[in-house]
Amino acid sequence: MNPIPDHIRRYIGEARVCRIATAGAGGAPHVIPVCPVFDGDRTLAVDLGPESVTARALRANPRAAVLIDDYDDDWSKLRKVVLHCIATPIAGAEQDAAWERIRAKYPQYGSVNWAPRLTMALRIERWVQEGVGA
Amino acid sequence: MNPIPDHIRRYIGEARVCRIATAGAGGAPHVIPVCPVFDGDRTLAVDLGPESVTARALRANPRAAVLIDDYDDDWSKLRKVVLHCIATPIAGAEQDAAWERIRAKYPQYGSVNWAPRLTMALRIERWVQEGVGA
Repeated sequence: MNPIPDHIRRYIGEARVCRIATAGAGGAPHVIPVCPVFDGDRTLAVDLGPESVTARALRANPRAAVLIDDYDDDWSKLRKVVLHCIATPIAGAEQDAAWERIRAKYPQYGSVNWAPRLTMALRIERWVQEGVGA
Repeated sequence: MNPIPDHIRRYIGEARVCRIATAGAGGAPHVIPVCPVFDGDRTLAVDLGPESVTARALRANPRAAVLIDDYDDDWSKLRKVVLHCIATPIAGAEQDAAWERIRAKYPQYGSVNWAPRLTMALRIERWVQEGVGA
């Protein structure tokens, strides 16, 4: 994988929301908005409902495409990063570390009783970007 | 298909951007941000690069999941609609009608001098929503 430059890492780490696309059994595409955390290296973590469409799709096919983007009607300001990832459920120390990041970044999880559900690591295997300046 | 209520139609029609997920040959998920137009009934139209990942994926598998959503750090304001669609290239009068809508909604197309490339209709077969009030 091409190394991810620092300014792209910052863009990924600061994103309040990403959109995760999956291709489940039978080739059914799906996409949801999710609040991600980033370890600063090559792994995002998200918490999913264990029986959600996305969780079921990832059990059938662990590939995920993660879009982080900003839309602007001034098209010279469009920015996006697409991360091609492999999803794996995490537990133990790795899940704890992900949840420390989640609690720090999204204090609003407190208001919805933030118990971990299905915490998934999304390991970046390949990435592309457009418009994210240094 | 469940009829789409008027307030959901408005939400779809007013969206400046949507995210289109595809599952190409070999079950590779992909997702891109695109500027859509809506005919107010059950068809979105978008213009794609004919050799883009999304166009190639749709040739292999015409199913698309289209996400229209608004993120807000106040999670009581989260809104989303997911449209499960079948994509087909359009030409002639249907393409002309789509481009009338594109030019009216996105005058910035003029500044990048985009002639129609691969114009695709995305026909809604099924939809779900969360948080889009009447």
